Amino acid sequence: MMSGQAKNMDHIVPDLPRGPLDLYRQKASFNWKEMVLFLEGEDNLEFKRLIFTALENDPLFARQAGEDLSVEKKRELTFLRAKQLFRYNFLDEERLMRNPQMMCVFSDCLSMYDSAVLVKQTLTTGMFGATISNAGSSRHKEYSKGSKDMTIFGCFSLTELSHGSNTRAMRTTATYDPSTQEFVINSPDFEAAKFWVGNLGKTATHTIVYAQLITPDGVCHGLHSFVVQVRDPKTLLSIPGVLVGDIGVKLGQNGLDNGFALFTDVRIPRENLLNKTGDVTPEGQYVTTYKDPNKRFGAMLGALSSGRLFILKFSTNNLKLALTVALRFSATRRQFGPTDMEEIPVLEYQQQQWRLIPYLAAVYVLNQLFNSFFVSFLELQMGRMSKDDSERQDQLGREIHALSCAVKPLGAWTAQRGIQECREACGGHGYLAMNRLGDLRDDNDPNCTYEGDNNVLLQQTSNYLLACIQAKHRGGAPIQSPMESINFLDDYDVIIDRRFTATTMDQCMDPAVVLAAYKWLVCFLLGESQMKLAQEKASGKDDFEARNNSQVYYCRSLALAYIEHMALQSYCVMLESEQTPAGLRPVLTKLGALYGLWSLSNHMAILYQGGYCSGKNAAEFVNTAILTLCSQLKDEAVALVDVFAPPDFILNSPIGKADGNLYKNMWSAVLQGKDVLQRPSWWKEFCTDKPQVGSLSAKL
Amino acid sequence: MMSGQAKNMDHIVPDLPRGPLDLYRQKASFNWKEMVLFLEGEDNLEFKRLIFTALENDPLFARQAGEDLSVEKKRELTFLRAKQLFRYNFLDEERLMRNPQMMCVFSDCLSMYDSAVLVKQTLTTGMFGATISNAGSSRHKEYSKGSKDMTIFGCFSLTELSHGSNTRAMRTTATYDPSTQEFVINSPDFEAAKFWVGNLGKTATHTIVYAQLITPDGVCHGLHSFVVQVRDPKTLLSIPGVLVGDIGVKLGQNGLDNGFALFTDVRIPRENLLNKTGDVTPEGQYVTTYKDPNKRFGAMLGALSSGRLFILKFSTNNLKLALTVALRFSATRRQFGPTDMEEIPVLEYQQQQWRLIPYLAAVYVLNQLFNSFFVSFLELQMGRMSKDDSERQDQLGREIHALSCAVKPLGAWTAQRGIQECREACGGHGYLAMNRLGDLRDDNDPNCTYEGDNNVLLQQTSNYLLACIQAKHRGGAPIQSPMESINFLDDYDVIIDRRFTATTMDQCMDPAVVLAAYKWLVCFLLGESQMKLAQEKASGKDDFEARNNSQVYYCRSLALAYIEHMALQSYCVMLESEQTPAGLRPVLTKLGALYGLWSLSNHMAILYQGGYCSGKNAAEFVNTAILTLCSQLKDEAVALVDVFAPPDFILNSPIGKADGNLYKNMWSAVLQGKDVLQRPSWWKEFCTDKPQVGSLSAKL
Repeated sequence: MMSGQAKNMDHIVPDLPRGPLDLYRQKASFNWKEMVLFLEGEDNLEFKRLIFTALENDPLFARQAGEDLSVEKKRELTFLRAKQLFRYNFLDEERLMRNPQMMCVFSDCLSMYDSAVLVKQTLTTGMFGATISNAGSSRHKEYSKGSKDMTIFGCFSLTELSHGSNTRAMRTTATYDPSTQEFVINSPDFEAAKFWVGNLGKTATHTIVYAQLITPDGVCHGLHSFVVQVRDPKTLLSIPGVLVGDIGVKLGQNGLDNGFALFTDVRIPRENLLNKTGDVTPEGQYVTTYKDPNKRFGAMLGALSSGRLFILKFSTNNLKLALTVALRFSATRRQFGPTDMEEIPVLEYQQQQWRLIPYLAAVYVLNQLFNSFFVSFLELQMGRMSKDDSERQDQLGREIHALSCAVKPLGAWTAQRGIQECREACGGHGYLAMNRLGDLRDDNDPNCTYEGDNNVLLQQTSNYLLACIQAKHRGGAPIQSPMESINFLDDYDVIIDRRFTATTMDQCMDPAVVLAAYKWLVCFLLGESQMKLAQEKASGKDDFEARNNSQVYYCRSLALAYIEHMALQSYCVMLESEQTPAGLRPVLTKLGALYGLWSLSNHMAILYQGGYCSGKNAAEFVNTAILTLCSQLKDEAVALVDVFAPPDFILNSPIGKADGNLYKNMWSAVLQGKDVLQRPSWWKEFCTDKPQVGSLSAKL
Repeated sequence: MMSGQAKNMDHIVPDLPRGPLDLYRQKASFNWKEMVLFLEGEDNLEFKRLIFTALENDPLFARQAGEDLSVEKKRELTFLRAKQLFRYNFLDEERLMRNPQMMCVFSDCLSMYDSAVLVKQTLTTGMFGATISNAGSSRHKEYSKGSKDMTIFGCFSLTELSHGSNTRAMRTTATYDPSTQEFVINSPDFEAAKFWVGNLGKTATHTIVYAQLITPDGVCHGLHSFVVQVRDPKTLLSIPGVLVGDIGVKLGQNGLDNGFALFTDVRIPRENLLNKTGDVTPEGQYVTTYKDPNKRFGAMLGALSSGRLFILKFSTNNLKLALTVALRFSATRRQFGPTDMEEIPVLEYQQQQWRLIPYLAAVYVLNQLFNSFFVSFLELQMGRMSKDDSERQDQLGREIHALSCAVKPLGAWTAQRGIQECREACGGHGYLAMNRLGDLRDDNDPNCTYEGDNNVLLQQTSNYLLACIQAKHRGGAPIQSPMESINFLDDYDVIIDRRFTATTMDQCMDPAVVLAAYKWLVCFLLGESQMKLAQEKASGKDDFEARNNSQVYYCRSLALAYIEHMALQSYCVMLESEQTPAGLRPVLTKLGALYGLWSLSNHMAILYQGGYCSGKNAAEFVNTAILTLCSQLKDEAVALVDVFAPPDFILNSPIGKADGNLYKNMWSAVLQGKDVLQRPSWWKEFCTDKPQVGSLSAKL
């Protein structure tokens, strides 16, 4: 069964240890190494293995499953590990130039190890360094260089204590003083303290501060970015005028030190303004090449777009890890059975399959969504670097913005719900910290919030769709876009009259049938949202209120349906590609169909309501198809997880280990716990100081 | 507006501090103190205030929002606090006899403070002590007494490393040795180690062990319970033959020490068998009054039923706390507005209302569900104590079992999702540990798992319903039950032919319309589930497989619809009661309608699929009614939260404080953090030991 190519891969994709999971591994219909090779490619795999091996061999990256570390200790370890990444310099320029995808491989490996380490290092080298490169000019090179060799440690200060989503409302000021040619940075009050800034809590020496730029004539020119030093790199003590500190313990990602900063008359050289979108002359005159302040603002915050795309990746990675744990557990945990004597793996239960396998399908679909999106994203970046000002480049920019505002919520929520389901599906053992599902959930959770709150972001997506259809109504050109996510809307009138036509359950298992239903769904919701907005306006609401009142059940649902359709469409393109090996196509097709049906089933009421479906059969076909696919995929599930599971060292979960020796691994980890068999230090509190029952009740 | 009665309540329900929340408090249509009095009653309120005040005045219960404590420290503090509860003896016998509801008040207060403290104390005094009282006999009195004055510390060892849900499959053995009149307790291997046992990790001296009882003739008589000493109360060191320890860090409730125990030839006196359901004579003969081993087994594990009911309460409490935080935050956090100059509270946004207010409605409905359930539960307990063997008592027992297996999942999941929504709705600040949403979510999470996995439990409920309808089909008596949860099923044939009749959105806002839809839904799902089971059996599946294949979309949905109907029905009984003050009825009715519609909307596809609804209007009415109710309730939301919010000290969340000074409170808590402004202890790691970029890349 094993192809020649797959056979030669043993050095980059080693065999997995034999054990109880073999039962399922042998049942898989496909060669998992062939799948690995198809999805990742040899180059990526070699790089992956190089990183994983380096981390595993480095004692600094050693950890114990379920260890109880203080936040202080977590921050220290994360800093030391981030520092070590400078030494490894995995992503050297040569490697990155040869293949920009290596950026993704690097992110995958590190985020699977511990996203805090990745985020900590990326905030200074990437977010800080790259923002300076993009938004600054030659005069800022020293900062960019300093962040690359850790002479300085950077961060990105946008949000304030009382403002997050409403970025324009930030209240920090940067007032220009021509007498000294300096900007004076001030926080008007503690509510305007910069807050939530990653790296600012303990380590940052410099930060990019977003502040309202005020010229000597008293005019406020809106938000601009400035490089401000906050700590002395020689001592890590704060600079006078800067009250900088740690905002405290978070629900997760505690390796990262998020901080605050309150500025009182902090003076920085005029040159520290990142001046790509606007500058101030030595005399104090404001100059910009942007006529439209909104466009200047958009260009300045453009960097957040790539962040959203990568959140899709990180969320998918978190879900991959959780599913590795939960599916290997389900394949080896036995509970109940047809007779009292024989217990069966819980993966054999329909309910367990239904809880987990759709998320497994989601991982394959979201993975492909990222990959195809990343290609377009690179195209956009290339265009920006070559200062392409074509219509296509502009369209691509807007489409990528709309999509990035929707892939982030889709990825973050799918992972959040999926990890919780994995936790519950592993029962009590899923609630034990050592098995890592808690950390995964907690580390994933902020993906719903940062780089734009999920619900707020979705409005950007629906606004884009509404604008597209309105342009068409105004007699514009056909609807089409570089990534083809909206092209089908051009057939709105035809699609909206279509109906669900499957007459058997089997037909529903064709992804094309699901894709057709989604096209109708997006059109229907688009029409309904337009109508709802028009009604609101007709009843006298202003634009702000009309939009707010058209979110739930309308614009919000529209944005979600659109991105689910796009995810499935990208996946179907991959399925139909000639490069997809024939031996993998059956299982990949099932995964696509399952994801599509399962996502679609959340919108079933709308399909009925709008008349796309009618009668009892439609929903029954969809439901039965979901269960049938789950049942067909349960024998593939372990192999499908093997495809993306990292080495045991990285996974760091006894019940998720590749050898499947669930209880041995857990028992061993329990016994390695700290002071596991010792009496508590406070034993005398039990043994000698006995309470007198009710002795304090008289005091009440 | 304030009634005389409410006015006189100031000493038990003090006024709340003035502040930014007044804006909403003044808009409420009802008197919140009147609501407090109606829902709680004066006695309960006084007791509540007594407990809250005692905790607040006791330095042992002091804590800092967001503090970073080691697990060791958490366990110590929880133990000391649990010990202090013996001294307070809040629930003295006299108080409990006068009013058994005081048990609920006590649980409410403690679980709102920190459920680990409550669980720790209840496991020894309640679970251990009460099990001994119920399952043992006079010869076990010393243990029961010892647990009451903390001479010993107890726990309850049922689950094993490799078995949880399948309780019958526990493998620990208790072999009787007539030569010494002792039982010999053995764990056959580490997979049979008792595992997950609360209190066993560090503190328990004694445990109730569930083990397979084997008589000298080699016959195994099934699972029985035994009192086994595991540690010496004088030293807290383990007893020879017992390998006892801590299973490690959990996702939450880390104040509680969950543990394991592995037994090697541990000998206990014959008398330590809890012998109510079965006994062994000194010579080694097994005797029992139960002819049916299944009934004996059921009687033995009956104690878990009350646990499930109380999980509904704890879940509701967790959700109450989370909503207090999220709604007070939403009423004071301003972001965006109709103009750039004016920002509005995020509670004004339709989307924020829709995310939170249905959960607020859920709290009111679940609260009432518990209250009405508790009355029946007490009746059952009284009946058991008076050895009532009437048909009604038997019916009540079965109904309560079926309901308890469904209220637990309903409560646990509603809280789990609601707390996550609260977390996200508070944005980044919800992700800060000090604001407590993380702890609430993590502490609530195991409610989905212990005392029976949610999904597994729901099967008990659907089995009950299927048995009822089958009995009726076999020509039995009319379907009716003591708590009237199934009475409507007697009209199955009439109900199944009914259709959705509301012709306006307003009509949908009547809880009776929702209740009618639910009755149809339960009947429809019951019919479908029966049919599905019959199909599975007709296709040759055995009973085990047929049931497993009929869970998803059938029996599972049935059980959930049934319990949601029951929740709404109980609530409507309260609404219609004469005791419900007229001034409160409008807002209470809206809450009921919102909960009902919001829950029902999850089943909308089924309503269409089964033909109960048709056309575009039905779903639109339901959706619009939900949004309309949310909008009407947004001005009541703060007052509705004030009704159940505990004092700030108990809530322990800066953004949730009653004065509504969101940022002041948060800023103050941040600055009180440990070492908040200090450089890290490892500062030299940044300042002197600079990495050489790429120095380790050669090693790769």
